[in-house]
Amino acid sequence: MLKNDTFLRALLRQPTEYTPVWLMRQAGRYLPEYNATRKQAGSFLNLCKNPELACEVTLQPLDRYALDAAILFSDILTIPDAMGLGLYFAEGEGPKFERPLRTEADVAQLAVPDPNVELRYVMDAVRTIRGALDGRVPLIGFSGSPWTLACYMVEGGGSDDFRTVKTMLYDRPDLLHRILAINAQAVANYLNAQIEAGAQAVMIFDSWGGALADGAYQKFSLAYMQQVMQQLKREHDGQRIPNIVFTKGGGLWLEQIADIGCDAIGVDWTVNLGQARARVGARCALQGNLDPMSLFASPAAIEKEVKRTLDSFGTPAAGSGHVFNLGHGISQFTPPEHVSALVEAVHTHSRMQRAQT
Amino acid sequence: MLKNDTFLRALLRQPTEYTPVWLMRQAGRYLPEYNATRKQAGSFLNLCKNPELACEVTLQPLDRYALDAAILFSDILTIPDAMGLGLYFAEGEGPKFERPLRTEADVAQLAVPDPNVELRYVMDAVRTIRGALDGRVPLIGFSGSPWTLACYMVEGGGSDDFRTVKTMLYDRPDLLHRILAINAQAVANYLNAQIEAGAQAVMIFDSWGGALADGAYQKFSLAYMQQVMQQLKREHDGQRIPNIVFTKGGGLWLEQIADIGCDAIGVDWTVNLGQARARVGARCALQGNLDPMSLFASPAAIEKEVKRTLDSFGTPAAGSGHVFNLGHGISQFTPPEHVSALVEAVHTHSRMQRAQT
Repeated sequence: MLKNDTFLRALLRQPTEYTPVWLMRQAGRYLPEYNATRKQAGSFLNLCKNPELACEVTLQPLDRYALDAAILFSDILTIPDAMGLGLYFAEGEGPKFERPLRTEADVAQLAVPDPNVELRYVMDAVRTIRGALDGRVPLIGFSGSPWTLACYMVEGGGSDDFRTVKTMLYDRPDLLHRILAINAQAVANYLNAQIEAGAQAVMIFDSWGGALADGAYQKFSLAYMQQVMQQLKREHDGQRIPNIVFTKGGGLWLEQIADIGCDAIGVDWTVNLGQARARVGARCALQGNLDPMSLFASPAAIEKEVKRTLDSFGTPAAGSGHVFNLGHGISQFTPPEHVSALVEAVHTHSRMQRAQT
Repeated sequence: MLKNDTFLRALLRQPTEYTPVWLMRQAGRYLPEYNATRKQAGSFLNLCKNPELACEVTLQPLDRYALDAAILFSDILTIPDAMGLGLYFAEGEGPKFERPLRTEADVAQLAVPDPNVELRYVMDAVRTIRGALDGRVPLIGFSGSPWTLACYMVEGGGSDDFRTVKTMLYDRPDLLHRILAINAQAVANYLNAQIEAGAQAVMIFDSWGGALADGAYQKFSLAYMQQVMQQLKREHDGQRIPNIVFTKGGGLWLEQIADIGCDAIGVDWTVNLGQARARVGARCALQGNLDPMSLFASPAAIEKEVKRTLDSFGTPAAGSGHVFNLGHGISQFTPPEHVSALVEAVHTHSRMQRAQT
């Protein structure tokens, strides 16, 4: 039994006593204890692939802050790694693939991995974390979106202009569609396996959807997230498993994102939460959207920004739900004590909001 | 007298025979002739500061392509350089300032430069280019927005998270407002001096407005562009001087941008032009918005994307106007011959659109 299910209720647009909060990348480099565990693991990938250490870092932020959810510690690129593309991390350069997809032959060889075989270490981590959490807060599972995975798979790493994958998009859309169809199946299987292993909510990170042109976004990112949605388990062990879709830079497309049938939409800080709520209506809850850079200001300034964010959503009423989060992952340079100010302000002010209405 | 005023008429929402086109950063590193002139100048800054060479590179793309406007070749950071911050370019690192604004004392010393003294080289370039153009097409003058200049002035260079300037924004908004007020006056004076020197339209590049949170954008970027608008010359020598405001990533705020009284709004490729047209109505023309990465595809694919972009705007009718452009500056790696395909497709298809209605 969950001791705190506020997060799940907000995602399902049920009443909550306060606005639940968690932070994207909450287990990460801004925490000295994370850096110590990572050092012990030897590398980021070792940390991801060791269920005990992944569990340890997943729980670290919960011991510091009164967060309302835990998120599986893992990498966004586990799927293409399981597909055999050879994920590695060059020092100071971010993720790279030894064998990026460039030719028709590369694409023809691509196959959907079995999450309980090639990605068993992720499912082991989910099971270990669920045991260690012991019902404290719900555990979120996650995956990159089919398009976001394809960006890395075709580019062979990060990119600031997505030239290679977009050239494929405009010149050989057939190849890209084939990659995306395989990715969509792989993501659906992966998230369903996480749900079976114990994930109590799942999130799709469409980190690079906002790099696409209007029109291309719908065809090359959203359509494949819809395919994932259609195959996603909505219940497990008698519990509803809510899902969240987050397209960074996707504020113009919220109505269309709501149309794919997700429970909640993540939004970045360029979005006005009140307007977003009016646009998606009672179809979805919203998650977001404080500017992560506001955490570099003083606790008093952080409190002001938290209040402004909660007020822009307004008091959650019947059929609406808000999960507080940043609009993007927390910066590695964030002072850890500022996160306490954020979490306290969310809980305090959101209780006051409800008391006033 | 202008031989081709299609661009100006589209900005003023007057009928045109076809959709005019120019490209942000059209004089630049993708052209071998530009690289030759730059080499001759010795450095990028020398090129900006030499009116004859700046004129030469401004005209280079017009000799290759049937573009409908020329844009002054200059740097976005001439104003803070004229304020004494010490602009320099570290090899492969982009622009930097020797003396960024960090303290109250730094900000207290900031003053509005006289564009006809400290920025005289820019006005000389405008006059030289106007002479060399001899009425072929209109000349666009430009400036960075007050906020975008402030980003560089406070960060001391480019940034991927704007941590320093945003910390000032959240912690010391008074300091940032002082910088922005001075920048707004400097930008207004600078653009008015360009108009007096011969610029026939002006554009404000708010390249980093889209990095701001909703709410902060309105207070820290849009409000200061409005101050510029209020002081901007709208006529010179009996001619209307239209202006364009371009906030990259500003698609959510188009109605509010239209409210500051600009003639045209630049939009990036995430925006649907038809929806944007419905949102701003007859208040403003639109400029944009092809994904610059589509220029890496084949000429046939480029033509298809151009047609899609023109069709998304629809046929310009009374009170509407469309200037074709990319949604951001052209990439330095673009094959120059692909730009011919783009320009031809815009002209051909937009004439066909008009013939069909």
